[in-house]
Amino acid sequence: MKQSQYFLKTSKTFSEEDSIISARLLKRAGFIQESVAGRYYFLPIGHKVQQKIMKIVKEEMDGVGAQEMISPILHPVELWKETNRTSTTGFELMKVRDRRGSEFALGGTAEEMFVDLVRKLEISYKDLPFHLYQFSPKFRDELRARGGLLRVREFIMKDGYSFHRDENDFSSTYEEMKRVYSRIFARMGLHTAIVEADNGYIGGEYCHEFIVEADSGESRYFTSNDGTYAAHEDVAVFKRNPANADSEMLPFEIISQPEWVKTMDDNVKHYQKEKNHFLKNVVYKNRVTNEIIIAVVTGDLEVNQTKLEHALSMVGQLIPAEDTDLESIGTKHGYVHCWGHAGARYIGDVVLSSARNLIGGQKEDTTDSINVNYGRDFSCEALYDIAVAKEGDISVSSGSPLSLRKGIEVGNTFQLGYHYTNLMKGAVYRDEDGSEKPYYMGCYGIGIGRTMAAIVEKYHDEKGIVWPISVAPFLVHELIIGSQTEDLKKVANSLYTTLNTKGIEVLFDDRDGMSAGAKFADADLIGIPYRVVVSEKTMNQGKIEVKKRADNSVTFMTVEEFITLIKTN
Amino acid sequence: MKQSQYFLKTSKTFSEEDSIISARLLKRAGFIQESVAGRYYFLPIGHKVQQKIMKIVKEEMDGVGAQEMISPILHPVELWKETNRTSTTGFELMKVRDRRGSEFALGGTAEEMFVDLVRKLEISYKDLPFHLYQFSPKFRDELRARGGLLRVREFIMKDGYSFHRDENDFSSTYEEMKRVYSRIFARMGLHTAIVEADNGYIGGEYCHEFIVEADSGESRYFTSNDGTYAAHEDVAVFKRNPANADSEMLPFEIISQPEWVKTMDDNVKHYQKEKNHFLKNVVYKNRVTNEIIIAVVTGDLEVNQTKLEHALSMVGQLIPAEDTDLESIGTKHGYVHCWGHAGARYIGDVVLSSARNLIGGQKEDTTDSINVNYGRDFSCEALYDIAVAKEGDISVSSGSPLSLRKGIEVGNTFQLGYHYTNLMKGAVYRDEDGSEKPYYMGCYGIGIGRTMAAIVEKYHDEKGIVWPISVAPFLVHELIIGSQTEDLKKVANSLYTTLNTKGIEVLFDDRDGMSAGAKFADADLIGIPYRVVVSEKTMNQGKIEVKKRADNSVTFMTVEEFITLIKTN
Repeated sequence: MKQSQYFLKTSKTFSEEDSIISARLLKRAGFIQESVAGRYYFLPIGHKVQQKIMKIVKEEMDGVGAQEMISPILHPVELWKETNRTSTTGFELMKVRDRRGSEFALGGTAEEMFVDLVRKLEISYKDLPFHLYQFSPKFRDELRARGGLLRVREFIMKDGYSFHRDENDFSSTYEEMKRVYSRIFARMGLHTAIVEADNGYIGGEYCHEFIVEADSGESRYFTSNDGTYAAHEDVAVFKRNPANADSEMLPFEIISQPEWVKTMDDNVKHYQKEKNHFLKNVVYKNRVTNEIIIAVVTGDLEVNQTKLEHALSMVGQLIPAEDTDLESIGTKHGYVHCWGHAGARYIGDVVLSSARNLIGGQKEDTTDSINVNYGRDFSCEALYDIAVAKEGDISVSSGSPLSLRKGIEVGNTFQLGYHYTNLMKGAVYRDEDGSEKPYYMGCYGIGIGRTMAAIVEKYHDEKGIVWPISVAPFLVHELIIGSQTEDLKKVANSLYTTLNTKGIEVLFDDRDGMSAGAKFADADLIGIPYRVVVSEKTMNQGKIEVKKRADNSVTFMTVEEFITLIKTN
Repeated sequence: MKQSQYFLKTSKTFSEEDSIISARLLKRAGFIQESVAGRYYFLPIGHKVQQKIMKIVKEEMDGVGAQEMISPILHPVELWKETNRTSTTGFELMKVRDRRGSEFALGGTAEEMFVDLVRKLEISYKDLPFHLYQFSPKFRDELRARGGLLRVREFIMKDGYSFHRDENDFSSTYEEMKRVYSRIFARMGLHTAIVEADNGYIGGEYCHEFIVEADSGESRYFTSNDGTYAAHEDVAVFKRNPANADSEMLPFEIISQPEWVKTMDDNVKHYQKEKNHFLKNVVYKNRVTNEIIIAVVTGDLEVNQTKLEHALSMVGQLIPAEDTDLESIGTKHGYVHCWGHAGARYIGDVVLSSARNLIGGQKEDTTDSINVNYGRDFSCEALYDIAVAKEGDISVSSGSPLSLRKGIEVGNTFQLGYHYTNLMKGAVYRDEDGSEKPYYMGCYGIGIGRTMAAIVEKYHDEKGIVWPISVAPFLVHELIIGSQTEDLKKVANSLYTTLNTKGIEVLFDDRDGMSAGAKFADADLIGIPYRVVVSEKTMNQGKIEVKKRADNSVTFMTVEEFITLIKTN
């Protein structure tokens, strides 16, 4: 491709909002252009990268017998009603009505569509298992888009759905898919951690995220230092550190307390005890039912809203309580009690069952309680794991300390089990004995644009992108430098033709009237693996100047040597 | 691909609605499955065909320097407002609002999106021309879906947009695109007529449709018998046959008329004159403005609503008048006059200017008028070409008779000129002299699914589909027939491996416990070009049985002979 004819415009400027390096570089280098917030054009060179990523995904998926197809983008809302997913508020689902009055969801994920397809056919045990996937546009009605391709409102996802005779058959596919996904990302230069995760609105019993560690990522997860455990902060289990666990229960007392003691830090200062000795409340409202939820933990813990929502089957429904919500249960900020507010539901963290003689629970201006014991002095509707781990907490399974990490979620895998097949009538296969049975399912997603962003997050330097060869838009960036004499143009065009003939993808910067510096800067910004310079100087030597973008090494060699070099890499 | 593991289910049954052969065959053979009316799944084998069609389109587009990219599917409605396209009622545009209140159109075509992209960049005359295209889902809120893939509500379209310095540059691209499109379709076995057409809501001054002649098609068009003219019925121009064109005007008279004379046929019978001697009215209502439009023609002509809408700049806005509409202008069905209904707008066909001494115009129960002459006795707001041609009418440009044909529109090309760049602020490039000028544009579409249907309409027989090699899902359909002994399986598997190794795409019907007849029927239905049978009989001969689906010829040959055969085809 000759750059003079290529729809490629680099830019020196970028928006203040583009604090994320991949957003800034992909925009500046002309790979993407924003339409409105969270919706992007993939320009020709960006589209090429996206296609290469998809090709790798397809090769690996096909390699294990998965089959590509395509489903409609508009999903009849009736299907989502069958699985109660329309009532999951907080889920970023967009809906549209056609002029005959039928309502459709703009697909954010397609479990119902694939189950609906399969149940329209007569499936026998002989047909199972099978795994169908598609590359298709997905929509998320995000309140906030950010970070270029990291969190968008519209994107291409590879989503796959596997159907099995039973859990046993599913499990082997699930393990295989973990290997397939790791290989897919590895081929693009990405090492992914496989992390236990929250399944959100998808359903099923367990799932994993594939995360590329990166400071710019939004996913926070823990890994145990012995390497045996990795889990998203929304699901990570950890050992609690209950206060006075081995002590006898002391008599409950209401004591006076100086008026300056208001915060947890004030408590620590006043009582000279660690935070785990104190009770603490966090109040939420369910925006669907308007119920007030008081989450009770000890002062060393933070409530994890996702864990709490799952415990209460209120996925996507909780919001922090506001002043009016506190008023509705007769209290105000700073004066919420661990018991006694009529109309509120009390949910406690599991730490309460083993902590003893806690301080707090019914703070007033100059009084509070001490020697408070769960079960004797107060109780909650239930105790769950509703707190988030922190750096250094101990993993339950391994006993090893946990480290907090940040990363970009590029893929995920879900056990769905019978979740959809139980809810959707007729989602059955005919077994060997003639009976009808629901199929056991899994699903598997990869965000293509986000993967592209993750690659740039990992592969760049101060000058621009450094594409791994496997996903580079072109393998070679040929630059003609200096005064474009007929002789020089002839040499440059001949090289361009030679490389094309060999099936090597070349972007040829043949632009005239541009300084060498500007061309070099563009080449570094765009990040094609090999930069080849043809100039008066190289021509006179009968060689070309080859720079490897990855290590910035520069070598002079003949065209033949260069072709040998890239064919063997 | 082994058929036992392929997600492919043929079916003997089909819906009564599937009167269209391509719909019936594609569904029965397992290529597509309906989700809800007009929205289809492309199953793995159907997806393969669609991909092959897209590959051919891409190769030819890239071959002339067009560049693939991708734009968002949700278009900010603000852009459509800039070009007044949201006010074009009758256009099947779906809209959706996000939870922040922004409104988006589900793209039916993407002119605004591409202009908006380009105007965000600094374009110089040096950058022009360029041609950007995408394969992307398109949505049409059709009232009636029909005919499988022939008229759907959601489909993949290749849409391309070219940007030029001036009309001259555009024109050469436009002519090139006609050749490119003809070649694209020819590579798939489709001969397309290039037909002048109506540009609907797209805008611009002229456009062409690429039509595959087929009885099942919805497009009606005329070709002149000398082959120099082809035009859709909505735009075809033809010579009128005005009555008494050379006569003097005779005195206007109101005469009595028997009460039984009510229809045009009654007129012909009573007056013993051809239909072109009589006046006729067709009444419409503008559903946006509620205006009543009376279209006046002679009895030999039929009004073409599209021509009338264009003449009045009321694209997509006219509907046939109902009884209440006629009442609103003081008349009723059968008694509409060619003049005098206050509140109605009269629009006449150009025939009125040359016809003389017409009969009719103010019919009552027992009277009507004769020797009615346009200009002397009545006049319309304006005369336009508002009538449709019919078989045998004479082409204006060539003087040759017109033949009516039916076909499937698979592609179209539009001159857009400055239509969008004039309406969208900032859609300019910087010219050599430093001034800002709007770019001159064209756009080009191909419906991928409809092309697939057109191929099946043309290539099938009573047993099933007969895919052309260029778009066939597989080149070879290998069938193992009879009792699957270990020896036979070994031979069959070896053939399968050999073909795969040679890069030949094979579907291997390895299903056990199925009759030869059932396998043959499936193979004929699916329509893969070469059917190869491996059986006890062929094994003993050391040969394979090869049937060409296109001509049903059967030959026995060695594997080597077969490979030579298909490599040379």
